[in-house]
Amino acid sequence: MEKTGPGSWGLIKSVPGNVVDGMKKVKKIGEDDPRRIVHSMKVALALTLVSLFYYFRPLYDGLGQAGMSAVLTVVVVFEFTVGGTLSKGINRGCATLLAGALGVGAEYLAGFCGDKAEPLVLGLMVFCLAAASTFTRFFPNVKKKYDYGVLIFILTFSLVAISGFRVTEILELAHHRLITILIGGAACVMISISICPVWAGQDLHDAVAGNIEKLAAFLEGFGGEFFSLPWGESGTASSKHESKSSLEAYKTVLNSKATEEVLANFASWEPSHGRFRFRHPWKKYLKLGTLVRECACLIETLNRCLNSKSQAKVASEFHVKIQQLCIKMSTESGKALKVLATAMKSMTFPSSAVFETHAKNYKATADELEAILGNSSLPTKANLQELMPVLVVASVLIDISNSVEQISSSVHE
Amino acid sequence: MEKTGPGSWGLIKSVPGNVVDGMKKVKKIGEDDPRRIVHSMKVALALTLVSLFYYFRPLYDGLGQAGMSAVLTVVVVFEFTVGGTLSKGINRGCATLLAGALGVGAEYLAGFCGDKAEPLVLGLMVFCLAAASTFTRFFPNVKKKYDYGVLIFILTFSLVAISGFRVTEILELAHHRLITILIGGAACVMISISICPVWAGQDLHDAVAGNIEKLAAFLEGFGGEFFSLPWGESGTASSKHESKSSLEAYKTVLNSKATEEVLANFASWEPSHGRFRFRHPWKKYLKLGTLVRECACLIETLNRCLNSKSQAKVASEFHVKIQQLCIKMSTESGKALKVLATAMKSMTFPSSAVFETHAKNYKATADELEAILGNSSLPTKANLQELMPVLVVASVLIDISNSVEQISSSVHE
Repeated sequence: MEKTGPGSWGLIKSVPGNVVDGMKKVKKIGEDDPRRIVHSMKVALALTLVSLFYYFRPLYDGLGQAGMSAVLTVVVVFEFTVGGTLSKGINRGCATLLAGALGVGAEYLAGFCGDKAEPLVLGLMVFCLAAASTFTRFFPNVKKKYDYGVLIFILTFSLVAISGFRVTEILELAHHRLITILIGGAACVMISISICPVWAGQDLHDAVAGNIEKLAAFLEGFGGEFFSLPWGESGTASSKHESKSSLEAYKTVLNSKATEEVLANFASWEPSHGRFRFRHPWKKYLKLGTLVRECACLIETLNRCLNSKSQAKVASEFHVKIQQLCIKMSTESGKALKVLATAMKSMTFPSSAVFETHAKNYKATADELEAILGNSSLPTKANLQELMPVLVVASVLIDISNSVEQISSSVHE
Repeated sequence: MEKTGPGSWGLIKSVPGNVVDGMKKVKKIGEDDPRRIVHSMKVALALTLVSLFYYFRPLYDGLGQAGMSAVLTVVVVFEFTVGGTLSKGINRGCATLLAGALGVGAEYLAGFCGDKAEPLVLGLMVFCLAAASTFTRFFPNVKKKYDYGVLIFILTFSLVAISGFRVTEILELAHHRLITILIGGAACVMISISICPVWAGQDLHDAVAGNIEKLAAFLEGFGGEFFSLPWGESGTASSKHESKSSLEAYKTVLNSKATEEVLANFASWEPSHGRFRFRHPWKKYLKLGTLVRECACLIETLNRCLNSKSQAKVASEFHVKIQQLCIKMSTESGKALKVLATAMKSMTFPSSAVFETHAKNYKATADELEAILGNSSLPTKANLQELMPVLVVASVLIDISNSVEQISSSVHE
């Protein structure tokens, strides 16, 4: 582990001279997701197999070239998820094929222009194609799915065009190259799928379900935390600190968009598999993810209320009433979300009975709250500033309950 | 543009058979950021120069191999920003050097083991090193800065180890290879820096300033929009629709984290340049970006209030008073943010006089608001439900003003 290239610089920097600490970190990364260790083994296996294959069989006698291509393909194409591997492999294969064909055409064309003009014509063609292709990489659609393909396209075209070989030679070379890439790519895809496959679709599913669970955890804990000070059911100091840090888990949800989009993109390359009998509905997951993030944003506002404790010390009857309703709403919506998350994780339809109970509960509570706010006249001496945090919390909780409903209908899709 | 590889599939799909439409899109992408066109030209130029260099000078007579390396380096290393190009170039160079040395060592070691054991020993070494290196790619620090370097490390080591050449041959080959990569990398860096350089640091700076501006635009427009219905200064229907869409601009701020982190990473590779006389304080930008996103989250809550118009139709005196204060706070904090954004863009210190005025104004308004809420007893018949949206807005605006203060002190750093 100590001599793993430039990568270890960052490692050494971050672990100030303490090897034990470093080993602990390494262990933790492995324990966090044991699939990482398996993935490392898989890459190493694919690489060793392809290497040894070319080592023992100096095919076509141009070993350097052909073996190099295969090793390159394995190293570059093998991604953590099956979808990523497929996406890169297909991109690489198609781009090489197309660019090779175009390159041969360009060479053929340039051959007509005489010896002197040939390099100029070739240079011009490389320039134009490289400029146009690089520009297409800025198109959002292309960037998302075919970025790697365009890269390989530019590369292969330039290589073929400037190789200076005759057309027949190129055709032979291209033939070998394609077979090599096919062997490398096939080895990657086979190993990736057959040994403990990591499906991007499954990961996406788990990520979204995990996010919903984090929101649920916050909502369940929020009521007790916010109203615990003078008259709620408070815990000991240590358990409080613990619950506080568990409340912060929702923060990662806010920035989950990039990860989800990458996973959804990879998932769209994957064939149907496992428990996704039909093709993976990855677009729905993106929509669900957006809803979850909006809900997380509301929770961020709630969290601010939690941190700026400018609460009344003495509670009026009215105050206490609203509080109890808030606590109830918060826990009920949290429970409803939890039911959804568990149902998603086990891929069953949400056990509608349980969910409906919670949903009914929080709807009833929300209605009650609105009724109270709408009808009761305030005790004249009520201090609005003291009431305000509670009112804000109540209003945000009503928004959240709407948001929970949207999420649930989206999950049912 | 029509034959640019597999990339065009996505294009064709997204442009349903309408070439004119497609051309318009292409034009728009170019107009949105003309540097994209320049970048495409720069890549093409570098590629053509390197290609022709190797075409005309079949150095070392192993043209195929050497030329290929140079072209590969250019295509893979040339990124949109200077920082990106430097990061990839340095990663590639160092990784090749290190892996080459280790590969020679491995070859040398395996030579001692006899002809039969050699491939086994080599295979084992490739397996171990590939597994270990792949695993380091999961370390957050390594993944962020050295991911590409580790990839090249695995690649080069495997290639050298299985090449089957004798040590002296490898040394010669490595020598040529390194020179080639140096030439390719140097061409990229030179062209990238000398012709219309795109500095990641500058981009990061502009992105953060632009985000602050978007928040400012929302806050300035919000007051008028929210309270415009019966008694505010409302505009015509068309101008209203327009202002609504301009209000939505803040939404992109919420998901800006990934972009900012990539830019900050690239910026950390850049030397001091242009108006950043000292090294780029990219860590501060990340902190500032987080503050801006938190503020955007609060604004998202405000926007929800805007969309769920459950406002009172008849306003009590108290109601109107709070409203006016809210409008004032919103516009003042918006103006303060705008001053900050403009100052950032022009790289001057915020003209403190102007900023201070706005800051004072909104602080005074916030205090006034708190005083009103704290002291005035409500008219007994006040309907709390009708008041609630206004109260929520007021409370969130107070939070926002705190947030604006944090941002401003962060900008001053």
